[in-house]
Amino acid sequence: MKKKVVSFSNNAQTIIYTNAIWEKNIDTVLAKRNTVIITDKNVYRKHKAKFAHRICIVIAAGEAHKQQHTVDTIIAKLIQLGCDRQTFLLGVGGGVVTDITGYVASVFMRGIAFGFAPTSLLAMVDASIGGKNGVDVGIYKNIVGTINQPQFLFYDIHFLQTLPVSEWRNGFAEIIKHGAILNKKLFKEVAANNIKDYQQNTTLLNKLIQTNAYLKIGIVQSDMFEKAARKLLNFGHTLGHAIENTYKLTHGQAISIGMIAAAQISETLNGKPCKESLIQVFKKYGLPVHITFKVNSIMQILLKDKKKTTNGVHYVLLHEIGNAYYKNLEPDFIKQQLQQFIQA
Amino acid sequence: MKKKVVSFSNNAQTIIYTNAIWEKNIDTVLAKRNTVIITDKNVYRKHKAKFAHRICIVIAAGEAHKQQHTVDTIIAKLIQLGCDRQTFLLGVGGGVVTDITGYVASVFMRGIAFGFAPTSLLAMVDASIGGKNGVDVGIYKNIVGTINQPQFLFYDIHFLQTLPVSEWRNGFAEIIKHGAILNKKLFKEVAANNIKDYQQNTTLLNKLIQTNAYLKIGIVQSDMFEKAARKLLNFGHTLGHAIENTYKLTHGQAISIGMIAAAQISETLNGKPCKESLIQVFKKYGLPVHITFKVNSIMQILLKDKKKTTNGVHYVLLHEIGNAYYKNLEPDFIKQQLQQFIQA
Repeated sequence: MKKKVVSFSNNAQTIIYTNAIWEKNIDTVLAKRNTVIITDKNVYRKHKAKFAHRICIVIAAGEAHKQQHTVDTIIAKLIQLGCDRQTFLLGVGGGVVTDITGYVASVFMRGIAFGFAPTSLLAMVDASIGGKNGVDVGIYKNIVGTINQPQFLFYDIHFLQTLPVSEWRNGFAEIIKHGAILNKKLFKEVAANNIKDYQQNTTLLNKLIQTNAYLKIGIVQSDMFEKAARKLLNFGHTLGHAIENTYKLTHGQAISIGMIAAAQISETLNGKPCKESLIQVFKKYGLPVHITFKVNSIMQILLKDKKKTTNGVHYVLLHEIGNAYYKNLEPDFIKQQLQQFIQA
Repeated sequence: MKKKVVSFSNNAQTIIYTNAIWEKNIDTVLAKRNTVIITDKNVYRKHKAKFAHRICIVIAAGEAHKQQHTVDTIIAKLIQLGCDRQTFLLGVGGGVVTDITGYVASVFMRGIAFGFAPTSLLAMVDASIGGKNGVDVGIYKNIVGTINQPQFLFYDIHFLQTLPVSEWRNGFAEIIKHGAILNKKLFKEVAANNIKDYQQNTTLLNKLIQTNAYLKIGIVQSDMFEKAARKLLNFGHTLGHAIENTYKLTHGQAISIGMIAAAQISETLNGKPCKESLIQVFKKYGLPVHITFKVNSIMQILLKDKKKTTNGVHYVLLHEIGNAYYKNLEPDFIKQQLQQFIQA
C-alpha cells in the first residue's frame, strides 16, 4: 500500500492509499476510528466476507435510490446505533454510495469525518474524488448536496474483479472525458486499447486509474468550488444529467451522448473536428452515441440544472481533443442544436 | 439603519444591520439579489403588507415542523420556481425559519447565499446568529445541519410589536443564559427589570438586543466550530433539548429548566450558590424552573445528543453567575443528579 497526502485550497487534506488490499490494510487505515460502513446491497452481497464483524448500513443499489429518503433512512439508523460526533463513516461502493455517504457525513450532527473505498471504476477515477456529494431530487441530478473532502480514499482494485461489464463501460465514459478535455495522450491510449486489455493487465489498469484520479485531483486542487477549471469536468454533463434519470440511462451512457452533442455544438462554433473520434472510441467501449428524446421536455430539465445562469447555460465545449473551454450558451441556441442532434 | 461587518475565522463575513426598518431599508439591502423569502404562516399573516409583490415560500409555524419534510417541500418549490445558484434566500421569522432557511441555502445546489431578518426576540439575540442551522429528526433536536454564516442580519425591532408574551419569555431565557454564563452585569440588569420595562422602552430594548447579539457574535468569532468557548452557550441545553420535544415545551421553557438542573449540578460540584438567583429571575420572566419527567427515557434521549462523547456528556456548569465552564460528566452521575432534581 502506498500513501500520499493531497491538500486543498480550504486546508482540507485527503490521504490517497493506492495499491491497497482490503484484507491486509483496512484495519490499519481504520485504527482508532469508530467506523460505520455504508455500502449497497450489490457490494455487500459480493463481498460479504469483507464486512464480517463490522457495523454496516446497507442501502438499496442504484441511482434511483440516490434520493433524500435514503439519507433519512441512514440518519435514523445512525441515531439508533447511538452514533456521535466521533463516529467515522466509510462509504464502500460506487458513486451513489460515496455521494450519499459524503452527504450524510456532512450534515449528521453538523458534520462528522468520513472516507471512501470506491469499488467501481467510475468511482475510482471520478465520483469519489473532489468532495462533491449529495442526492437527486426526483429526476433532477445532484440538486442537493455539499462540497466536503473525505479524510481518505482507499484504492483496492480487487473490487473491480466482480464488476459487471456495464460498470466498466460506465467508468470508461469518464476516462474518455478526461482525455477529451485535458489530455490528448490519455485519449489516444484509451482509443488504442479496449476493456479486455485493461482487465487482463493489472499494471496497465492501475496506471490508468492513478492517471485519471490524479488528473481529477489536480483540477479540484486548483479550483475546489468550481469557479473556473473544475467546470470543464462537466463536459457532456449538461445534456447528460437532463437525460440520465428521464430515460433511465447509466451515468456513462448519458454523458457519452452528452459529449457527442457537445462535440457537435463545438464544431458548429468553429472547433476543430472532434465528434467523429469521440464516436469511434465510445463505440469501442460499448457506449451509446445517440438517443432520440423530446427536446422541449429535456430543455425544461436542462434549464433547472445547477449549471444554469441567469442568462443561459454554462456549456463545456472543445477547441479540439484534449483542449476544452466553457461558454454561456443561450437556451434558444441549445434547443436548435439539440433538434439537429436528434435528427442526425 | 446602521451597518457593521463582522468576520469569522473561516473568512466568512456577515453584515449586521441594526436600527433597520423593513419598509424603508429592505429594498436597499436586497438590491441586485434574486431573492426568495422563506417565512412561516404566523409571520406572513401578521405582516402581509411587507411581503406584497415578493416571492415567498410560507411554511407551517412551530418547532414541530422543523423537520426534513419541510426542507423537502421548500426545495421542491425552489426547483419549481426555476431558482439557480444566483438565487438569494431571505429567512424572515423566528429560530425555526432561520434554522431551516440557512440549512436549505447550505445544501440547495451545494450552497447558495442567504440572509436573515429575525422577527422574534429569541432569533434576534441568539438563534439567527452564528451560522448553526438544521432540523430536528423526530424528537432529537438539531441532529442534522451545517455551520454556515448568513451574508447579513437585518434587525428591525418593529417585528417585535406583534410578538405574543410567550415569545418574549422565550427570548429572555437565552438572554438570562448569556448573563449567567458570561456577564454578571447583564444578569443583574435583567433581574432588576421585567418584560414590560423592555417593551415600553425602545432604547433599553435596542441596547439589550445589541448587547446580546454582539456577546454571541464575539463567542462565535472566537470559536466558530465549537471547540471551546462556544460550548458554553449550551448551558441548559443538554437537559433542555432532551425534554423540549418530548414534553412539547417552548425552547425557552426547556432550557430554563435545563439551566436550573445544571445549576444544581454545579452546586453539587462545589460551585458557588447560583440556583436560587436563577430561579428568581426565571419566575420574574414567566419561565418554568421545574418539571417532572421520566429520568430513564430522558437519559436515553440525552445520550443521543450531539454533546455526547465516547465517555460521557459535555455539560456546561457555573463556577458562579457570570462564570461558566464545561466538564465531561459520566452518565450515571447525571442520572443520579436528575433523579434528585425531579424530587426537589
